This record gives sequence, C-alpha cells and structure tokens, in this order.
Amino acid sequence: MNPLLKEIRSSPLLWMLIFVPVVLVVEHAVPSAHTALFVLAVLAIVPLAALLSHATESVAERTGDAIGGLLNATLGNLTELIIAVAALQAGEYMLVKASIAGAIVTNSLFMLGMSFLLGGLRHHVQDYNRAGGRLSASLLLMATIALLAPAAVADLDLLKGEAMARNLSAGLAVLLICAYALSLLFSLKTHKELFASEEHGDAGGGGWPIGLAIGTLLVVTVLVALVSEIFVSSVQKAGETLGLSPAFVGFIIVALVGAAAEMAVAFSAARKNRLDMSVSIALGSASQIALFVAPVLVLLSYAVGPKPMDLQFWPGAVTMVMIATVTCCFITNGGRSAWFVGALLLFIYVIFAMTLYMVPPGSHAQI
Amino acid sequence: MNPLLKEIRSSPLLWMLIFVPVVLVVEHAVPSAHTALFVLAVLAIVPLAALLSHATESVAERTGDAIGGLLNATLGNLTELIIAVAALQAGEYMLVKASIAGAIVTNSLFMLGMSFLLGGLRHHVQDYNRAGGRLSASLLLMATIALLAPAAVADLDLLKGEAMARNLSAGLAVLLICAYALSLLFSLKTHKELFASEEHGDAGGGGWPIGLAIGTLLVVTVLVALVSEIFVSSVQKAGETLGLSPAFVGFIIVALVGAAAEMAVAFSAARKNRLDMSVSIALGSASQIALFVAPVLVLLSYAVGPKPMDLQFWPGAVTMVMIATVTCCFITNGGRSAWFVGALLLFIYVIFAMTLYMVPPGSHAQI
Amino acid sequence: MNPLLKEIRSSPLLWMLIFVPVVLVVEHAVPSAHTALFVLAVLAIVPLAALLSHATESVAERTGDAIGGLLNATLGNLTELIIAVAALQAGEYMLVKASIAGAIVTNSLFMLGMSFLLGGLRHHVQDYNRAGGRLSASLLLMATIALLAPAAVADLDLLKGEAMARNLSAGLAVLLICAYALSLLFSLKTHKELFASEEHGDAGGGGWPIGLAIGTLLVVTVLVALVSEIFVSSVQKAGETLGLSPAFVGFIIVALVGAAAEMAVAFSAARKNRLDMSVSIALGSASQIALFVAPVLVLLSYAVGPKPMDLQFWPGAVTMVMIATVTCCFITNGGRSAWFVGALLLFIYVIFAMTLYMVPPGSHAQI
Repeated sequence: MNPLLKEIRSSPLLWMLIFVPVVLVVEHAVPSAHTALFVLAVLAIVPLAALLSHATESVAERTGDAIGGLLNATLGNLTELIIAVAALQAGEYMLVKASIAGAIVTNSLFMLGMSFLLGGLRHHVQDYNRAGGRLSASLLLMATIALLAPAAVADLDLLKGEAMARNLSAGLAVLLICAYALSLLFSLKTHKELFASEEHGDAGGGGWPIGLAIGTLLVVTVLVALVSEIFVSSVQKAGETLGLSPAFVGFIIVALVGAAAEMAVAFSAARKNRLDMSVSIALGSASQIALFVAPVLVLLSYAVGPKPMDLQFWPGAVTMVMIATVTCCFITNGGRSAWFVGALLLFIYVIFAMTLYMVPPGSHAQI
Repeated sequence: MNPLLKEIRSSPLLWMLIFVPVVLVVEHAVPSAHTALFVLAVLAIVPLAALLSHATESVAERTGDAIGGLLNATLGNLTELIIAVAALQAGEYMLVKASIAGAIVTNSLFMLGMSFLLGGLRHHVQDYNRAGGRLSASLLLMATIALLAPAAVADLDLLKGEAMARNLSAGLAVLLICAYALSLLFSLKTHKELFASEEHGDAGGGGWPIGLAIGTLLVVTVLVALVSEIFVSSVQKAGETLGLSPAFVGFIIVALVGAAAEMAVAFSAARKNRLDMSVSIALGSASQIALFVAPVLVLLSYAVGPKPMDLQFWPGAVTMVMIATVTCCFITNGGRSAWFVGALLLFIYVIFAMTLYMVPPGSHAQI
Repeated sequence: MNPLLKEIRSSPLLWMLIFVPVVLVVEHAVPSAHTALFVLAVLAIVPLAALLSHATESVAERTGDAIGGLLNATLGNLTELIIAVAALQAGEYMLVKASIAGAIVTNSLFMLGMSFLLGGLRHHVQDYNRAGGRLSASLLLMATIALLAPAAVADLDLLKGEAMARNLSAGLAVLLICAYALSLLFSLKTHKELFASEEHGDAGGGGWPIGLAIGTLLVVTVLVALVSEIFVSSVQKAGETLGLSPAFVGFIIVALVGAAAEMAVAFSAARKNRLDMSVSIALGSASQIALFVAPVLVLLSYAVGPKPMDLQFWPGAVTMVMIATVTCCFITNGGRSAWFVGALLLFIYVIFAMTLYMVPPGSHAQI
C-alpha cells in the first residue's frame, strides 16, 4: 500500500478522501439531510475521480500500448458513467441527459478556457500547431453532430408517441458505438503516430504495481457507485432547497465534478507551456462522451432503467453543445492562444450557466 | 457510333442501359406495377446520367475553354434538373425541395466522405492544399447561406398567406441567378487560374466527335426526361408500399442517383491520391445546386407547375443542409485527411438518412 | 477654425452638413412632415458621424497611446449609441434591438464585403495574413455568442413574465462590460503589439489642435443627439408611409448611417491593398457593439427608458447575427480574397435586407 499512501500524502486533492466515509456515515445517520448529503457527495466524488483516473493509467501503463490505450480510452470517463448509471436507475433522465450535454460543454469551454487562461497568465503567447490537434477538432465536431443530429433535425411534435424516439435513439446508439470502435482502431492502430501518447507521460506518479492498480480500480469504482447513489437520491430534494434544477445540477455540477481529475492534468500541462496536451485532453474527452458514454447509457437504460431512455435533448442543450463545439473547433484551429481567449471561453461558459440557472428547461413536456 | 459502343463495352456501369427499354416497356405493359417501375426507373437513370455527363464533357472539350466551361458548369447537374422538372410538373413540391436539399447534403457529406474513405484506405494520410479549394469552400458556404437565409430567418407563421413566401422566393431566385452568373464570370474569366480545369482532364475516355456528342446529349436528355416522368409518377405509390416518404426519396435516393456519374469521377480521383479534384467536384457541384438548379426550378415553376413554388424548406432540411455545409467547409479547410474522417462524414450522412426515414416531415402543413 | 473648415472644403461628404440646419428648421416649421424629416435626419447624421469620428481620433492622437486607444475604442461607435439612446427614451425597443443586431451584421457582411469587392476590383488577389486578424475574428465570434447565448438557449415561453428576462439581461450586461474591460486591458496593454495601431495612422487629416478637437466632439455630439431625436420621433410615421417596419429601419438604415464614417476609412484602405486594416476595422467595430454598446444600452434603459430593456432578440435576428459572424470569421480566417468573395458577402446582406423588408418581425408578441 506504500505507493498509494505516498500518493495520497503528496497530493492535497486526495486528502478530500476523508469525505467518502463521512458521506457514508451521514447517510446512515441522517438520511433526510438531503442538502448536506448532496454537498458531501460532491466533495467525496472529486478525489475518488482523481484516484480512479490514476489507477486506470497505472493499469494501462502495465498492459502495453494497445490494451492500455483501449483501457485509458474506455475508462477515462468512468466517473461520469457511474454517476449517470446511478441517475439512470433512479429514472432521473433529465439529470442523465444534462450531464451528457454538460460534460461536452464543460470540456470544450471550461477545461479549454481555463487552460488557455492559466497558460496565458504565465506565457505571453502560446502556439500549439500539432497536426493531430486539428484532426481531434474535426473528430469532436463530427462526433457532436452525430450525437445531436436527430434532436436538431427531427420535429419532436411529429414523433408518434415515445416509441419512435426510442427506436431512433437505439439505432443511433449502435451507430455511435460503431464509430467509437472505428475511432479506437484509428487512434490506437492505423494512425497512432498522430495521437502520440505524450499526453499520459507524466500524468501521474507512475509506477504502481499492477495488483495495487487493479485493486484500487475495483474498490474505487464501488465507492464511486455508492457515493453516486447518495448523490442522485439527494439531488432532487437538495436542488429544491438550494433552488437548483436537475438540468443545472447535471449540466454544471456533475460535469465539473466528473472531469476534475482530467482538468488537473490539463491545467498543469498548460502552465508548463504544453498546450497541445491540454487541447488534446479536452477535445478527446468531449469526443468520448459523445461517441461512447452517451450511447452506452442509452443501451444500458434498456437493462437498468425503469423505461428506455432516448437521446432527444431539449432544444437549449442542443444549441449550447453546438455553440461550444463549433467555438472550440474554431479557436483550436487557429493554433495560437493568449489569456484573453481563455477568458472569453470562460465568459461563454458562465453565461450558459447563468442562463440555465435562471431559465431551467424543467417544464418541457417531452423530457 | 463506334466510340459510344466502345465506351459502353468498356464500362460495366453502362450495361445498366438495358434498364431503359425495360422500364419503358413495363410502363406500357403493367402501368400499375408502381414499385417495380420505381426500382427500374432508378436503375435506368444511373447509366443515363453517366452518359449525359460524358457527352457534356465531350461537347465542352470541343468548344474551347470559355463556352466549354460554361456548358460543363450549367449542364453538370442536368440529371437532377430534369428529374426535378418532372416532379414540378406533377406538383410534387415536397419531392423537388427534398431533392434540392438532398443534393447539397449528398455532395458535401456522402461524396466527400466516400472520397476520403476510399482514398484513405489506399493512402495513409492525404494532403490537399490548393488555395482554390479553400476558395471553393467559401463559395459553397455563402451559396448555401444565400439559399437558406429566408427559410432560416423568416418566421413562417408570419407570412400572410402563400403570396408573400412566393414573392420572397422569386426575388431570391433572381438574386441567386445573378450570383451564379457572377460566379461563372469569376471562375471562367477573371480568376480562371484558381480553378485550373485539371478536374475534367481524364474524366472520360475523351475523343468523341462533336456530332456524336451533341446527338448523344439530345437523345439521352429525352430518355432521362421520359424515365423521370415514370419515376415521379410511380414514386408516390411505391413510397407507400415500401414505407418511404417523398422527403426520404427526394433527399436520399434522387440525390444519390442524380450524382452517380460525378461520384464515379470523384472516387476514382481520390484513389489516385488526387483529393484536390474530388474535393473540387463535390464542393462545386453542391454550390451549383444552390446557385443555379434551385432558382431555375423556382422560376420554371411559374411556367410548368400547377402553382408557383417557393423556397421555404422545412426546418429540419435547413438544419441538415447547414450542418453538412459547415462541416464540409471546416473539414476541407484543414487540408489533411485520413480514412476515419471520411468514415465520420458517412456516419453523419447515415444518421441524417435514418432520422429522415423514421421521422418524415411529411405532415408539415406549410409545404 | 481653420483646419475644420479646410477639412470640410476638401471632403465632399462633409458638404452634407448643410442638412443639419435644414432638418432642425423643417422640424420647427412643419413638425408633421414625418417622411421628409426622416430622410433629412438620415442625410444629416452621415456627415456628423464622419466629423465625430475624426474629432475622436484627433483627441486620441493628442492624449497618448493608452488613453487615446481607450477613447478611440469607447467613442468609435458613439453615433450608434446616441441614436439608440434617443430610441430608448422614446420606448422604441424594437428599433434599439434591431440597430444593435443590424450594426453587427452590417459591419461583418456589408463593410467587409464592400471592402473585398472594392479592393478586388483593383487588385487581382489580396492576401492578408496578420496573426492579429485571426485573433480579432476569434474575439468577434465569442463576443457575439456571449451576447446571443441567452436568446438562443432560453426557451422564451418559459420565462415567467418579463421580470426573469430582465434579470438575465442585466446580469449578462454586467458580464459583457467586464469582458469589454478585459478586452481593453488585452488590446491596449498586455498584447498591444498584436493590434498595432496602423489602423488609425492615416485615417484622417491628422493635426487638429486639441481644443478644436474637444470642442468639435462636444458640439457634434449635441447635434447628433438633436437630430437623432427628430429621426426617432419621425421614423414610426415615416415607416408607415414608406412601408418600412421599425425592424428594417433599425437593422439596415440606422446601421448603415451609423457606420458611414468607419466605412469610408475601411473602403479606402481596401483600395490601397491594405485589407488587414479594413478587416480589423470591420471586426473590431462589430465586437465593440456586442461587448460595449449593447450592455450599456441595457443598463441605461433602467435610467432613461420607460421600463428596463432586455436582450431577448427575436429568433430571426439571432440567426442573422450568428450567420453573419460565423461567415465573416470563416472568410477572414482564409486570409485571401478576390472580388467575388466580396460580392457574395454583399448578396447575403441583400438577402437579409429583402427578407426583413418582406417579413418584418413586428407582430412578435414578446418584443
């Protein structure tokens, strides 16, 4: 257990692990303290996500390039996935959809904007011209379009009942997963030199033994699942108390919490003037949500949810995700950044959050 | 007739010409076999379109640069035009509008995506950096915006009756044709070096005598017109039998059939690592639909249709065309391709087709 | 007064100053001649705007880089601001909103398009590759998104009464002004070398004494305010007579009139093959409308308007502004122009104007 303890001691973020037992205890003692449980659950998930991300990387390192890349790619958004599955089981479909859309927006506006801002405060102008970056932006743009096309194109009122929306979403989910499989083939096999894995080079402390890494992966997954369940069951009531809609919680809070670990890596890379890596993490993570997490949740909803979930996002979410993705592609295409570019990306994010806070889409009938 | 027969013998596609007499005979013998007639008409139009395209090029070659370029440009989408005129005469406005929108989407997603995929399967990474390509992308973007602006901007419910929509569309059609005339002046006269006509260099077997070329052009035009009439009159009933809406048939089937000849050229160029040419064909053809075919149809509708046609596309079509065009501009702006980029473009196309198949816009009142 | 008179004698535009006394006299003599007053007011504002712009630059020149830059930036759109304040006082919110949206569209389509066209008619192909230009385009894109996000994202019907829309708009206005302050810090202090002020180098005749410049600034501001009041009070009736809606007048006429002075500079630069400068004026002015003029008007509406104004643009305006900005960013990103690119930008502008003329958004309930 030495490397794990060493890791915890050296990383202040992991001291927040104390909130994991706290939230479990409070849940047993005062199950009706919804607001406290909600806040504690958020605080507990952040360090667990960091640990999960580190364990995944350690396993990936030990298993060689191909399988390791696959693991990293599929487990990279494991936290988001576990939270969403808990919400799925509770039938909180608005929360699930909001967390999918919010994760894409958070990765492409907040993670990227904060990277540009933090990098720009230390370096005057930052250039990042890797050809692979431009390819990532194309992939993200197309992944998002593929995810949103039915919601953007189809006139919802024409859907005769929910059956048609569900069939369309199931077909779409299968297509997206095929695209995801092809993207892995592309980035891990046929064109892996374009995505050279410098990204994960110094991400963690390295060097965990494989047994510890797999053990941590399993234990932490269970812990995240437990805490997520508390989170989801308290969010409704806590939201009412704090005046937050499920849409706002999913879009902003779940997305920020789930991506905390990746953000730490991206921000530190930006400050080291390695913007290529920050851009690649932000774009790659957003693509993965669209091509993998979203369709897996649709298919899982047939097994674990009270009824199948469709992918019909509410119109405002479609607009926000499209704006975030197009902006992010346009900005990264330029290949040059300064602090104000980051500041403006963050402004757009804050405006989205403000709008969502004041005008929640909760009363929409079709969701 | 030697070169024509030689052409037919050497090109398996042209063997499908056998379907032309077949469909004409079946139409006389069993006029009520709508589904068979529909399928036969589709099979007959494909080789006719290839022949028409080859004849146009032969005439263009013999008439010198300026007139030849003009001919190539205006007759390049003759098949789409003839089919649409047949639909116009039958009052099938939904089919006409769907085929206009579908032709733009098919050229910018399917033709381009398949070119990237086929080229990428043979070549690892393909670069195409011609400055003219970037100019073509700008022109396509602006042509599409010009075509769609009224539909995107105007609140349909505010149009007092159909009269205002028709006046707006007629004014727009005149503007678009002026823009088209200027684009010919630009690409054939003032800046022709940017669009150097390598595109049509090895497109066909070359060398048809002018008499044969003009004769073929005339005869094939009449044949396409005859078969198009059968196609349009059978499509309604066949659609009902096969479960296809006019929107789906126009958007997907007419567009694929009409562009078959150009696709053959674009795909072959991509496999020869001449992506510049594939991109130029796809973008140029899509621009031409927006700036020439669409307004000509509006103006023709005053002469041949039961009532004037407007250019108010249904909202989903506007979204699909805008997404296709913006994606296509963004992707081609990068100047670098690999197989997965093509695969993702095709995925988006399939998602559009799937959505249109499951949620047809047929019940919209204003169309 | 010598330099001022010399300026007026040498510049035919300023001969139109004769319309200033004319409109003031006519207003006293025949206050009910609304159409004549409207036309005269438009004719009087054009030379005043040119004079205002020249005086601002003269003051800016004399006050050193930092304060001068600040003056130029904040007073650059003073004419638009004064007209809009007059409309605000009269409670003509549709006119105010239309003039905000119209100014962005006019700067990014008309000013840019005409610059490309005029430059392209004299020079075969024009390249403009300054890195700062690309940064300006990013800033414009993000400024516009920030301005429009709430209108694009929020479902208007969900706003419980007008109170929520107003709160959202007030919060947004504060955010936009913060972003504007940061943009001044960025462009005038931390990264001023990227925006090297060649733009204003030969903009005017230079050399006004500071006293004359400040005096002109004050007197002309008062004159513009007086004429604007006549303009706003006559526009409603004149619009009815001429068949123009407030939306059309604000979007097209106010925007063209207010930007006349900047256009003169941008067009002359384009003809001298200094497209960088034209692009920079057009993009910078459009950004300033979004980040400064619009939020200032919202905050002013609490003081001078009959009731607070919100920033909920009607859907067609959102679409037009987004299309104009994205097109403009895409086109300028290429860094290469020819006359036809300008012609197409102008075509899009004409199509917008035509649509707005024929389908005014006047009957929308929420505005």
